[in-house]
Amino acid sequence: VDLTGKVAFQGERGAYSEEASLQFFGLKVDLKPCKTLPEVFRCVEKDEASSGVVPVENSIEGSVNQTYDLLLDTSLKVCGEIDLRIVHCLIANQETNIKGVKRVYSHPQALAQCRGFLDQYGFELIPFYDTAGSVRFVKENRLLDAAAVAGSRAAEIYGMKVLARGIEDVPDNFTRFFVLSKHEAQATGNDKTSIIFSAKHVPGVLHSALEEFAVRGINLTKIESRPTRVKVWEYNFYLDFEGHQNEEKCREALKGLRMKTSFIKVLGSYPKSK
Amino acid sequence: VDLTGKVAFQGERGAYSEEASLQFFGLKVDLKPCKTLPEVFRCVEKDEASSGVVPVENSIEGSVNQTYDLLLDTSLKVCGEIDLRIVHCLIANQETNIKGVKRVYSHPQALAQCRGFLDQYGFELIPFYDTAGSVRFVKENRLLDAAAVAGSRAAEIYGMKVLARGIEDVPDNFTRFFVLSKHEAQATGNDKTSIIFSAKHVPGVLHSALEEFAVRGINLTKIESRPTRVKVWEYNFYLDFEGHQNEEKCREALKGLRMKTSFIKVLGSYPKSK
Repeated sequence: VDLTGKVAFQGERGAYSEEASLQFFGLKVDLKPCKTLPEVFRCVEKDEASSGVVPVENSIEGSVNQTYDLLLDTSLKVCGEIDLRIVHCLIANQETNIKGVKRVYSHPQALAQCRGFLDQYGFELIPFYDTAGSVRFVKENRLLDAAAVAGSRAAEIYGMKVLARGIEDVPDNFTRFFVLSKHEAQATGNDKTSIIFSAKHVPGVLHSALEEFAVRGINLTKIESRPTRVKVWEYNFYLDFEGHQNEEKCREALKGLRMKTSFIKVLGSYPKSK
Repeated sequence: VDLTGKVAFQGERGAYSEEASLQFFGLKVDLKPCKTLPEVFRCVEKDEASSGVVPVENSIEGSVNQTYDLLLDTSLKVCGEIDLRIVHCLIANQETNIKGVKRVYSHPQALAQCRGFLDQYGFELIPFYDTAGSVRFVKENRLLDAAAVAGSRAAEIYGMKVLARGIEDVPDNFTRFFVLSKHEAQATGNDKTSIIFSAKHVPGVLHSALEEFAVRGINLTKIESRPTRVKVWEYNFYLDFEGHQNEEKCREALKGLRMKTSFIKVLGSYPKSK
C-alpha cells in the first residue's frame, strides 16, 4: 500500500470514512473527498488518487451492497481493511453550551444509536442525510440553540465544539472499510482474503463449496449470500477467509472452489486490521 | 396472519414500507406509521397493532442489522415475507412541470439509483434523510421549482403530481420485508423458515452446520454471518431455508443443528413471497 499518495474517500469532510482513512494512513495523508462511491473507484482507476477507502459493513454511511456491486466490476484490488470504532459526539457552535441546545440534527441511525443520551435532555431530534453534513449545517446557519451528532473529526474540520463525547448507547459500534489500490498487498503471515463467487441455487451447493476450506483448516470470517437479480436461481456469495491467496492451502482451496462454481473473483488479500 | 387488524410499519406516510404493507395486506388495511423500528416491535408486542412490517434487505430505508438485532430479542414470530419492487417517481406540486424543476430532494441512495435520469436534466441534487419525507418537504414549503424522488404512494398521500415514473437506472430493484405477529403461520407446502444461530469461530464449523441441510436436500435461500461483538470469536449466522419448521426433514435438520451450535432461535416459518 502506498502510504504517501492521495487517498479518496466517500462523504463530506469530517465523515467517519475520513476518520477511517486517517486511522489507516496516518494524519499527514492527502485526502480527497468524493460525493459517491463510484467516484472513489473512478479516482483510483484513473490515478487521481493512489488509494481509496470504502465502507463494507456499515450501520450509518454508505451502502455495503453498492460497494460489493462496484467491487464486482473494478480492476482494483482490496489491499487493506480498517475497523473503525464509531464514537458519536454532540457537536455545537463555540458559543453554545449543552443547556442551550433545543434541537439535535444527524443521520436517523446516528440519532437512534444515541437515543438514551439524547432522551435524557428532551432534545427535539431532526433527521439529516449525513452526520458530518449536519455539523456543517449547524455551523453555516449559525444555529446557536442546536447541535449535531457526528464523529469528533467533524468538529475539528469545521472548528466546532464537542459538548459530549461517546454518547452512543451501545459502545461496541464498529464500521469496516476496505482499502483499494491498483496493487496487491504482500503476504504478512497474518492476512485475510476476500472473494465473490456464484453458484446455482440447488441444495448442498454451498456446503460443497465450503468443504474446500473446511478440509484445509481455513477459517472463514464472513459469509453472505445475495440473489443475483439478473439470473434467477443464481446466488452471489461474499466470502472472507484467513490467509493470503499466495499461501499453498489457500491456493488449493481456491482451485477446488473454481471447479465447483460458475464464477469466482478474488477481490484481494490484505493484512488483518488490528 | 390477521388480515383485518392494524399494521405497524416504520417510516413516514408514503414510505416504501407502507407500499409493502399495502401489497401484503390489501388497500383497506388500517396502517400505523412508527418513527423507529423498535416502536414497530413494541406496538405489536403490546397489541396496539396485530402485525408489523419491517425491512430485512433494504438499499434505501431502515437497517437490516437493526431488524435482526430486534428479532434476536423479541417474542414475535416472522409469519410472512414481502418482496417489493422499488419504483422511483419524480414527484412535485400540482403547478410544477418538469421544465420548471431546478432542484431534486431525496435520500442519497434514491438519488444515486436515478442518476442516469436526473443527470439528463441537469437538476441540482439535494440529499434528504428520507424519500417520502422529501415529498412532504417540497409540498409543505410550496417549492414550485423543486421535486422529490419517492414511491408513487407518497404522491397519493400528499396530493402531489407524478412527473415521471420508473426513473431508476437499474430496473431490478427489490426490497425484502418481514411480517411480524404473535402467531405462527401454518404450513402451506411452499414455505420458508428463518433462523439465527451462533457458532464458535473455528475452521469447518459452518460447513458442519450446513451439512444438516445438505444431507436432507433442503435448499438454503440466504446466509449471512455477523460477528457477535459481545463475545469475541463467536459469530451469529442468519439463515433462511425452504420448508416449514413443522415438516419432518426441517425438524430433523434443526435438531441436528442444535447439537452443533451454542445458540439457535427459529424466527418463524412463512409462505414464500410471490
